[in-house]
Amino acid sequence: MIVVMQKGATEEQLQEVVQILEDKGFRTQITRGTEKNIIGAVGDKSRLLDLAIEAMTGVEKVIPILAPYKLASREYKPEDTVINIDNLSLGGHDLQVMAGPCAVESKEQLLEVAHLVKNAGAKILRGGAYKPRSSPYSFQGLEEIGLKYLARAREETGLYIVTEVMDTQKVDLVSYYADVLQIGARNMQNFPLLRAAAKSGKPVLLKRGLSATIEEWILSAEYILKEGNSQVILCERGIRTFETYTRNTLDLSAVPVIKYLTHLPVIVDPSHGTGKWRWVQPMAQAAVAAGADGLIIEVHPNPSEALSDGPQSLTPENFNKLMNSLKPIAQAVGKKFDLSGTPEYFGYSQVI
Amino acid sequence: MIVVMQKGATEEQLQEVVQILEDKGFRTQITRGTEKNIIGAVGDKSRLLDLAIEAMTGVEKVIPILAPYKLASREYKPEDTVINIDNLSLGGHDLQVMAGPCAVESKEQLLEVAHLVKNAGAKILRGGAYKPRSSPYSFQGLEEIGLKYLARAREETGLYIVTEVMDTQKVDLVSYYADVLQIGARNMQNFPLLRAAAKSGKPVLLKRGLSATIEEWILSAEYILKEGNSQVILCERGIRTFETYTRNTLDLSAVPVIKYLTHLPVIVDPSHGTGKWRWVQPMAQAAVAAGADGLIIEVHPNPSEALSDGPQSLTPENFNKLMNSLKPIAQAVGKKFDLSGTPEYFGYSQVI
Amino acid sequence: MIVVMQKGATEEQLQEVVQILEDKGFRTQITRGTEKNIIGAVGDKSRLLDLAIEAMTGVEKVIPILAPYKLASREYKPEDTVINIDNLSLGGHDLQVMAGPCAVESKEQLLEVAHLVKNAGAKILRGGAYKPRSSPYSFQGLEEIGLKYLARAREETGLYIVTEVMDTQKVDLVSYYADVLQIGARNMQNFPLLRAAAKSGKPVLLKRGLSATIEEWILSAEYILKEGNSQVILCERGIRTFETYTRNTLDLSAVPVIKYLTHLPVIVDPSHGTGKWRWVQPMAQAAVAAGADGLIIEVHPNPSEALSDGPQSLTPENFNKLMNSLKPIAQAVGKKFDLSGTPEYFGYSQVI
Amino acid sequence: MIVVMQKGATEEQLQEVVQILEDKGFRTQITRGTEKNIIGAVGDKSRLLDLAIEAMTGVEKVIPILAPYKLASREYKPEDTVINIDNLSLGGHDLQVMAGPCAVESKEQLLEVAHLVKNAGAKILRGGAYKPRSSPYSFQGLEEIGLKYLARAREETGLYIVTEVMDTQKVDLVSYYADVLQIGARNMQNFPLLRAAAKSGKPVLLKRGLSATIEEWILSAEYILKEGNSQVILCERGIRTFETYTRNTLDLSAVPVIKYLTHLPVIVDPSHGTGKWRWVQPMAQAAVAAGADGLIIEVHPNPSEALSDGPQSLTPENFNKLMNSLKPIAQAVGKKFDLSGTPEYFGYSQVI
Repeated sequence: MIVVMQKGATEEQLQEVVQILEDKGFRTQITRGTEKNIIGAVGDKSRLLDLAIEAMTGVEKVIPILAPYKLASREYKPEDTVINIDNLSLGGHDLQVMAGPCAVESKEQLLEVAHLVKNAGAKILRGGAYKPRSSPYSFQGLEEIGLKYLARAREETGLYIVTEVMDTQKVDLVSYYADVLQIGARNMQNFPLLRAAAKSGKPVLLKRGLSATIEEWILSAEYILKEGNSQVILCERGIRTFETYTRNTLDLSAVPVIKYLTHLPVIVDPSHGTGKWRWVQPMAQAAVAAGADGLIIEVHPNPSEALSDGPQSLTPENFNKLMNSLKPIAQAVGKKFDLSGTPEYFGYSQVI
Repeated sequence: MIVVMQKGATEEQLQEVVQILEDKGFRTQITRGTEKNIIGAVGDKSRLLDLAIEAMTGVEKVIPILAPYKLASREYKPEDTVINIDNLSLGGHDLQVMAGPCAVESKEQLLEVAHLVKNAGAKILRGGAYKPRSSPYSFQGLEEIGLKYLARAREETGLYIVTEVMDTQKVDLVSYYADVLQIGARNMQNFPLLRAAAKSGKPVLLKRGLSATIEEWILSAEYILKEGNSQVILCERGIRTFETYTRNTLDLSAVPVIKYLTHLPVIVDPSHGTGKWRWVQPMAQAAVAAGADGLIIEVHPNPSEALSDGPQSLTPENFNKLMNSLKPIAQAVGKKFDLSGTPEYFGYSQVI
Repeated sequence: MIVVMQKGATEEQLQEVVQILEDKGFRTQITRGTEKNIIGAVGDKSRLLDLAIEAMTGVEKVIPILAPYKLASREYKPEDTVINIDNLSLGGHDLQVMAGPCAVESKEQLLEVAHLVKNAGAKILRGGAYKPRSSPYSFQGLEEIGLKYLARAREETGLYIVTEVMDTQKVDLVSYYADVLQIGARNMQNFPLLRAAAKSGKPVLLKRGLSATIEEWILSAEYILKEGNSQVILCERGIRTFETYTRNTLDLSAVPVIKYLTHLPVIVDPSHGTGKWRWVQPMAQAAVAAGADGLIIEVHPNPSEALSDGPQSLTPENFNKLMNSLKPIAQAVGKKFDLSGTPEYFGYSQVI
Repeated sequence: MIVVMQKGATEEQLQEVVQILEDKGFRTQITRGTEKNIIGAVGDKSRLLDLAIEAMTGVEKVIPILAPYKLASREYKPEDTVINIDNLSLGGHDLQVMAGPCAVESKEQLLEVAHLVKNAGAKILRGGAYKPRSSPYSFQGLEEIGLKYLARAREETGLYIVTEVMDTQKVDLVSYYADVLQIGARNMQNFPLLRAAAKSGKPVLLKRGLSATIEEWILSAEYILKEGNSQVILCERGIRTFETYTRNTLDLSAVPVIKYLTHLPVIVDPSHGTGKWRWVQPMAQAAVAAGADGLIIEVHPNPSEALSDGPQSLTPENFNKLMNSLKPIAQAVGKKFDLSGTPEYFGYSQVI
């Protein structure tokens, strides 16, 4: 930690800061400049402390040197974390695609999509049973019955299930049905929910908040890791900027940054990231080229009848096209992308 | 609702949209342009529906005409909502100040601040017992014991209590102690929490999310109003922008905008809005001049020892100075600002 | 300057950085942490150098300690700069209002507005002869003839003239007619223009760029000061954020921040800052309460016929109302606000 | 154009709007809603007019239907524009890479880089002779002598030259030396410069402004096209957001969006877009996968000695690595990427 003293701060003020830092177990060193003095403070607990040095008289600002997270850092664990969803690997050399409708709307809709995305090569089915909607008048999800349909789709297709949980009181219920718990962007800093989801023992898919910095996002992952659950998948889904042509601004730079700073896998959601089906394929391709470990994509048998996020949902046909377009790009960046199970590759339908 | 068809959309595509809209009970009218056709759709349920028209073939975009909220709108209720916290009025002609430490740290700290802010003229005590912190290693609050200290401070000083609730499972507990439930910026779109807080029957202080548009913020208020709780206070606390000199960018324009669009009272938090005690007074003054119904301000007896947000906390002396500076501005904009109880005005301490 | 070395950087890499810094005349001091080492570097030229230390192997990041500007800083010149526009003072204890149409549209329009704003108490007339418009199909200004009308309005009313210059090739011409040269938001980092405007010797009104940080804005002022022109007025006019309800987000915190960091006067443009006449008065009041040295406000005799920015222009009646509303607020914050010249104050018209 | 009337607007107010629109040559149609009435207005000049309808009494807002640009639109010219830089094609099926130092620093530096990037497969040399720098104390470029070095590099290597012009007074000079004129991000809305650059007849590389919307960016291209110069290359170089880990946020979604809305080629600058050499390769890969027509990349023989933007410059070795990594991705998206001239491909050095 670096403490920058104000120009004109007195020697007493400087010594007072030094004293407090040393009382807390830091070693300190003063660098005297022509205009301002600075204090370097080092010590084991430097990333854990929450001192209000900046509020002391004579202090201009405090600059942290160490990242505020530990368990998520690449320094703590140099090798990539690979998530095991039953016998499926996410992270490392594998590229995985999660696909399905924004919301579970009916058993028929869900099962239809499940078979379609499976045939196109997806291994994980997405679908919201609890939907966080800006307006209280929008469809809020089928709730528990939606979870049951997801379970049924898993039985029928063998796809794994990822679905969102929004409330600590529902974590047990959602965990009962889901293979991966999704924490949505709006809940990225819902800390009680992060802790509860961690304790479920299930892998957690942590979406980046709409205006979360990369550091805050990693700190939210740290909440989960700190509870002893190391199965965290980060998901870039677009941030909020001044640009309105796209629904959000997909920050693909976050992909290599996350892989540099942490050992956690990172996937990309080009559906929410762009808000329009038309941009989903090029941005999915770009995500893979940037090094993403996976994608989560909205697919609907009939987007214009979707109860949620229709405009950004792919038709099954376009989803199939997208999956095929990813193959050579995955290869170019050294990722293994298994499209088996699709009629194109095995010559018969995998539908049970 | 206006549906803009793409250039080159066929007549069939246009008629299909018209059909769906009429099936849903809308009246429609087509305006044929030289390049694009548009469909105007009117009907009672126009603000409540969630159609995926934008996903239909041939449709370029859908432009809503009516605001997506109803109960919060000035059109629904033209007169100002005045919140009654016991016999204290917030909204309308009164200016109220909430003040206190960011976090409840100890009984002594809280009681000291409580007496000080009361003497300076505040009528409501703020203080967090549950603290949403970006890092899991930061102080997370005293939890239930913090609530007990707040109750004790109320007994001793007569100040009303506003404190944050972060989890649906704690709403009953926090409601038992608090006069006003605070929903923090990070939870503005934690919809289960909004509903649970609404059902407590207590007034709810709803902070604006870091990257929430004014419309989304009002929609979150609508969630509370829809549960039958009309006691909602909105709080502007700064939004996230590219500017880093201040912690957030205090969007004071939101004050007159909220008062124009809704009937709800709006207060301002210049402590979080700026992140530095030095800017709190000028921005508090500006907030009152812009028409705010109140302020929420962090005060700490010794900011440099604060366990949370020390740099933005005022010393009691500076808080006193601020309160006095607001008096003539409140008067200039026609607000009643009662500083009674302060030694300056009554010549004796109001401490019980 | 602080250089933070990467975890695992070698001693050689550290010594190489030290060597380069010392070669450039810095004194250095190494603080060795448990994970990372840091180098403090101090020296007279620290704010002027442009070293690419961050590109050296083993370096994680470079953190500047001193502000990158000098002539603009409060440290360099502790007392407020007061701009003298002929015998009018802007800055210090005076509050000045500049008002007029967005664009000069005709002689009649301009003279009508000039008399009206003068009668309401403004001392400076604004009006664009060269208009920077996003679209090439929008009205681009009357150019030189517009300047002549401004000169005529000055003759008739005694108001001083502020008008925008957009091109280095027009600086001489615009300077010939204007009392204050305006650099628009889009040109805040048009460095050749900054230099040319500085050399005109006229006071320069420097608007903040749409996405300029406060530091970048001050650096642009530094360009002007460095050419020997100390007459710089900064103007906050709203920044670009995700919020679309207002045209821009008026960052009023910039007012006290600028006054703290620099000695330059700062004024506020609530017309562009909000984009809608309805919010101009409350935000003008807030600007004064935050400590602004002046305001620049769009007034049009008939806003719905304005060729530019009609929606944000005040009618003369609303402008008059606004001016009167500012009086008590200016008084509350210790500013002298001279409304003389208005019929209300002197009982007769000042119109020549 | 759609005009939305306020709730409670009178019939007279509505008719007044209709009258004005019809006077201007629009056909109008009124759609009467239960709460608000709307007026649809169609006519040939709808995209060219600049009416202040929004300032009329009773009007809530005006919603444009047609894009405000014409010549740049895909509707105006359906087929891709291919830029011919002498006998080199940019746009269409070709992928082109521009590379070189941020600033021309010396003849030796420039020639060294020129040969290196040529050998790696680049066809166009970048290098700034006039540098727009935030601080007046930073290196501002070698100016005309820098242009001469660029010309010399062209002679020696056969590379084409792209370099920035910052002032209308330098357009002739820079055009004399450059093959492509670059308009920098800070000058994207320097309209006199856009016009002057257009008139040079040279292809213009138009960088996106730091906070420019896609629509504003296209409108700036429209300024150039309107002067009769159809050779415009758009360049995404990152936008300003709240995220500070990267220097800017590279908005790769802009690539498919630009290609959908316009017929112009679009390239990507991952060096400025990320600000750190480490992220340049993954984001260059992502740009190509998203469909970009080219890249512009900073390369420096010794980044730590660069006078500008060293941290984001690639070493020649890393640049070579990047170029090879692009080959399979270009192929995957159907782009022709010619790396000929490199020793790896032809077995001998092309260095003259």
